[in-house]
Amino acid sequence: MKKIINDPNLVVRDMLDGFVAAYPREVRLLPGTTVIARVDAPAANKVGLVSGGGSGHEPAHAGYVGEGMLDAAVAGEVFTSPTPDQVLEGIKAVDAGEGVLLVIKNYTGDVMNFDMAAELAEAEGIRVEQVIVNDDVAVEDSSFTTGRRGIAGTVFVHKLAGAKAEAGGTLAEVKAVAEKTVKNVRSIGMAITPCTVPAARTPSFTLEENEIEIGIGIHGEPGIERKAIVSSDDIAAELTEKVLDDLKLETGSEVAVMVNGLGGTPEMELYIVNKKVNEILTSKGIRIYDTFVGEYMTSLEMAGVSVTLLKLDDELKELLDAKSKAPAFRC
Amino acid sequence: MKKIINDPNLVVRDMLDGFVAAYPREVRLLPGTTVIARVDAPAANKVGLVSGGGSGHEPAHAGYVGEGMLDAAVAGEVFTSPTPDQVLEGIKAVDAGEGVLLVIKNYTGDVMNFDMAAELAEAEGIRVEQVIVNDDVAVEDSSFTTGRRGIAGTVFVHKLAGAKAEAGGTLAEVKAVAEKTVKNVRSIGMAITPCTVPAARTPSFTLEENEIEIGIGIHGEPGIERKAIVSSDDIAAELTEKVLDDLKLETGSEVAVMVNGLGGTPEMELYIVNKKVNEILTSKGIRIYDTFVGEYMTSLEMAGVSVTLLKLDDELKELLDAKSKAPAFRC
Repeated sequence: MKKIINDPNLVVRDMLDGFVAAYPREVRLLPGTTVIARVDAPAANKVGLVSGGGSGHEPAHAGYVGEGMLDAAVAGEVFTSPTPDQVLEGIKAVDAGEGVLLVIKNYTGDVMNFDMAAELAEAEGIRVEQVIVNDDVAVEDSSFTTGRRGIAGTVFVHKLAGAKAEAGGTLAEVKAVAEKTVKNVRSIGMAITPCTVPAARTPSFTLEENEIEIGIGIHGEPGIERKAIVSSDDIAAELTEKVLDDLKLETGSEVAVMVNGLGGTPEMELYIVNKKVNEILTSKGIRIYDTFVGEYMTSLEMAGVSVTLLKLDDELKELLDAKSKAPAFRC
Repeated sequence: MKKIINDPNLVVRDMLDGFVAAYPREVRLLPGTTVIARVDAPAANKVGLVSGGGSGHEPAHAGYVGEGMLDAAVAGEVFTSPTPDQVLEGIKAVDAGEGVLLVIKNYTGDVMNFDMAAELAEAEGIRVEQVIVNDDVAVEDSSFTTGRRGIAGTVFVHKLAGAKAEAGGTLAEVKAVAEKTVKNVRSIGMAITPCTVPAARTPSFTLEENEIEIGIGIHGEPGIERKAIVSSDDIAAELTEKVLDDLKLETGSEVAVMVNGLGGTPEMELYIVNKKVNEILTSKGIRIYDTFVGEYMTSLEMAGVSVTLLKLDDELKELLDAKSKAPAFRC
């Protein structure tokens, strides 16, 4: 294992310190916690939006904290759910009396711990609602999940629900936007190399020199198929078709596209994938409203890519375009 | 070699197509060229700003094309200078009669080809000025360079000169801002793994399992020293001290910091590096005005990091804060 780190057991603490050091105008670290919150939290007269999960997916989730997106992100250890007491700290820090929505990626640990935190917060008189993101069409049930996993599509939930909250939406309205986004978003990923959790010191899986895995999870959970590497066009086509099989878009539908690098993929390759995704959608008469190419939901240094499609309507387009000052999603 | 590409000899063409497909509101590909230009080029009553160089450094340089930054970026083959005729196409596309400034990273091929293009453009009646960026303090002279190399600090030159041009600066004024930025910016990088140029199919250098290289160039050119890996704090301290030795900042100086990933480094590790960079600067009484952590000037999938410091004054701060719609530098 060769990594640019200090103590493998302190990577999350070091990372959070380095993150808030970079963006002091936007975020702060709540003392004694692993919660990154907006610098002005609780933002007055506004529903609070809290997400989080295991670390190792940077810039998720702390990179999405800021005006127009999340109010707080709770970091667990690498690929490990944050504990309920940490999530509770996040909820308490952002509640301004308007209630708090939790955006949870569908992993059993996250669902359990965020739910426990919600109960604890409600016992303290805070209104809490939850939305679970399960955009990964690759597999039903997985190593750490019942049902579908939540992956890069979660970033769109942060953006759209965040914009609704910033615009003064009620807790029910912000939750409705988050639920509509979950209903309209689908993703799938693939990897060409694995990643190594620092404290584990060895790769979480192995692939042969010429092998790829379609449908892999962001923690290296098994996908659909392992096979010899094919061209970028074939990879892009397979991922896009699998998403379209599930999302069932009509001709004339409008979508946002996300081509997300898993951490170790050169940005050049992400654009090469986007070329084909764009061609396929255009050939089917699907209109591309906006495209996001880059690293949004990573898996440490895993090399690979995921493709996300979000079906848009007028409400979602307006929320997508709304201003965001989150460090990893400025617009 | 395992990459998400189609034909190794067509990666630049595929990448440029995928790039403009992602950002049609901001950029267009000039037909029959490797030039990415602002969608509204030539922007009226404005000095044109052109940069570029070999590909493989994405999001540089095309990602910095857009309102508030570059007017055009000219792409060469991977790690290869663009030809003079392509640079000339870029110059002609952005000249609105106010003249054009070329921002050139200091590599012999780039300097020669951009200079030839400038001569050709001047023969067609276009005023052209040039600024050469040489921010890399690692070594004097290198495989492809006389003098110091130009690396991630170039992005600050794009940003500040771009803001000056957008604000209506004359060619002389925009050049003066670019020159001041070059004078005030220093960088140095290090790598823990090499990268593979697609058409070459084998890594451009090798490092032992536990080895790192300090001062490496963004094409894998030799650095200062190879040694066994040390902690992130020690790496960050060595890079920061080498920059400070050269930049000679007084207590109370204000700087912008860039912690740049070379392509394969997890974003988590970049934040861990930033933690120490921030601590060192703060301990010396240097004020950090803004920080940029992410992938700005990469080397394909090379894992490693560079640290850039830019000394600021009131003029440069205002230009740094000015609006940019470039896809890879939105603010």
